[in-house]
Amino acid sequence: MSITVRWVAVLGVGISRFGKRSEGLIDLLSESAVMALDDAGVEQVDELVVANMASGEFEGVSGVGSILVSRLGLEPARAYKVEATSGSGGAAIYVASNSILSGMSKVALVVGGEKMTTKETPEVSEVIASILDEDDRAHGLTLPSLAAFSARNYMREFGATRESLASIAVKNHYNGSLNPHAHFRKRITIEEVLSSPIVCDPLRIYDYCPISDGAAAVILADINVAKKYRDKFPVIRGIGYASDTNSPIERDFLFEMPAVRRAAEMAYAASKRGPRDIDIVELHDMATILEVIISEELGLFERGRGWKAAEEGVTSLDGELPINTSGGLKAKGHPIGATGVAQLVEVSMQLLGECGERQVQDAKVGLTCNVSGFGAGVTVAVVEVI
Amino acid sequence: MSITVRWVAVLGVGISRFGKRSEGLIDLLSESAVMALDDAGVEQVDELVVANMASGEFEGVSGVGSILVSRLGLEPARAYKVEATSGSGGAAIYVASNSILSGMSKVALVVGGEKMTTKETPEVSEVIASILDEDDRAHGLTLPSLAAFSARNYMREFGATRESLASIAVKNHYNGSLNPHAHFRKRITIEEVLSSPIVCDPLRIYDYCPISDGAAAVILADINVAKKYRDKFPVIRGIGYASDTNSPIERDFLFEMPAVRRAAEMAYAASKRGPRDIDIVELHDMATILEVIISEELGLFERGRGWKAAEEGVTSLDGELPINTSGGLKAKGHPIGATGVAQLVEVSMQLLGECGERQVQDAKVGLTCNVSGFGAGVTVAVVEVI
Repeated sequence: MSITVRWVAVLGVGISRFGKRSEGLIDLLSESAVMALDDAGVEQVDELVVANMASGEFEGVSGVGSILVSRLGLEPARAYKVEATSGSGGAAIYVASNSILSGMSKVALVVGGEKMTTKETPEVSEVIASILDEDDRAHGLTLPSLAAFSARNYMREFGATRESLASIAVKNHYNGSLNPHAHFRKRITIEEVLSSPIVCDPLRIYDYCPISDGAAAVILADINVAKKYRDKFPVIRGIGYASDTNSPIERDFLFEMPAVRRAAEMAYAASKRGPRDIDIVELHDMATILEVIISEELGLFERGRGWKAAEEGVTSLDGELPINTSGGLKAKGHPIGATGVAQLVEVSMQLLGECGERQVQDAKVGLTCNVSGFGAGVTVAVVEVI
Repeated sequence: MSITVRWVAVLGVGISRFGKRSEGLIDLLSESAVMALDDAGVEQVDELVVANMASGEFEGVSGVGSILVSRLGLEPARAYKVEATSGSGGAAIYVASNSILSGMSKVALVVGGEKMTTKETPEVSEVIASILDEDDRAHGLTLPSLAAFSARNYMREFGATRESLASIAVKNHYNGSLNPHAHFRKRITIEEVLSSPIVCDPLRIYDYCPISDGAAAVILADINVAKKYRDKFPVIRGIGYASDTNSPIERDFLFEMPAVRRAAEMAYAASKRGPRDIDIVELHDMATILEVIISEELGLFERGRGWKAAEEGVTSLDGELPINTSGGLKAKGHPIGATGVAQLVEVSMQLLGECGERQVQDAKVGLTCNVSGFGAGVTVAVVEVI
């Protein structure tokens, strides 16, 4: 029987190790793309959407869509790149999903990746800062400092402890230790977080995600096509996508991310699921404080209660609502263009019970939340196995 | 009455002068975006798709989607960039069209632009060459040399004269002289083309498009929404998009562009129009020879006859099938990300009778063809006023 709901199937996934990699971007993208094609059991796709932020700045290469489609021998598939800074992966999934829902494509390969370690840290920071409002940048604002201001605001307003934020880093490193694809597989303690070098007070080096190379891929498909390949597969039941000011200091409070709220509302409405239905979450923990803020804006915890939930272990692997089972950006790593795609890979694998040591039991509904800049653009997807 | 055909309305257009501009990319994008919003009479859009190739390489800026949506005050519109090298504009129109056809968006702003004159010509050439296959590049291939090899192949195979190619540059400069937005408004003669400096034999400097800054924008909308704004507007009746090898020397003949053929077939089938129905064309004349090759692959002329049609004036402003009434890439200029969008602007204006001195009489059906690399990716759209 033909299904006419507006769902998009996740027919296959691929991901390889994040970290410092010797390969270039095209090699990394190819590696995970081939894994996803194999996993799906498809040889041809109608569309190839590459998520990547800065191949030009990092490797001096443009046109990665054309280069990759030829490398993979997937011509005449339509191939192009989608860029929305750190939210590129989520944006690419949104775009590919529209192509399938519009009937233009039946099967699409979405592959996100970034090769960042070609440059030294100060140069990488310069590239990343280029996404911010020009005036803000001229005044010295950076994404790490915005996160620190946000943490300071949040702690004062809600009485959150420094330890509670540290516990998020500890949790995500623990999860990462169980994920063979994670950049960091080392477990850490709260004491280690709190004695690590300060980046921007009150946040320390262990509060932030690292600079990583890596890629991840998914095969999205029309539901009725997917049914010919598999009996059981995850579907994206609904996607939300919204933007907000590119100058976060315009917000009333730096611990707010209105675009997360809007994107979540859209995704919940489209999927007919609400925050209470969510069993597992992959979200954009560029810094520990962002895990708290985003979890609240998603409606998973009341405003000002996210830090407590983290401290009490609610979001741990064995808690009621595990967040970032993959290790998150914090421990799995954040190769910019890969992140949104890697989130869908993790949620899909969890829902299919393929996560080995870090497997969450009985997870039925998953959510991904990928963020551009400091909340300038946000995609949220609700995923469930049918 | 609600229309359920798969057409997308062009509700407004905006374009400003191409050439050496003092403004930066965001300013150029904003300028044409505001013109398109005004032309459409809409104040808010659901989606903002930016077409741009190399903001990173040319200006050290990523995240132009987020920056622009804030600059224009269009939050919470979904904002991201689409990149497919010189085909970015067509790819962005395709992506926005899918968003509308899928029902995700009702109104979308597509704005393409490039700021290129920040760099000297050798650096620009380096950036452009980065889109080619790595091995080809290592052997010294560039887009201008590929065009020259292609011209040599074509002339030998079909007896085309050097003068016939020069006549295309003359025609496009003439058209550009009538277009206030064109980079070159100077009319030239065949003698001037043939005595201009050689770039790569047999092609000379006047056979190639210049390096330009510029931007162009269109407002795309759901047909039923568009009807609330206007009684009469152009619609995209069908889009085709296909890729081909990124290493053109793998083709049997360098004067073939299989992706143009495939994309055209898709667009003709979707629009229920064929090559005989087309009245005006904007196509990707990066070099004069490409106007010939592409016009043949689009089915407008038989293989090996395109040069004759050009020489005989068939493709002139007062000919049977005017090509590149805007001046084309050759004379209007080729700010990379702008080109595909600017083609749709020109065709829409022609079909609405808004082209002033360069207006073609009684044009009913228009076609655009935007090319990535040397035929690595191609979009074709068939446009008609309803």
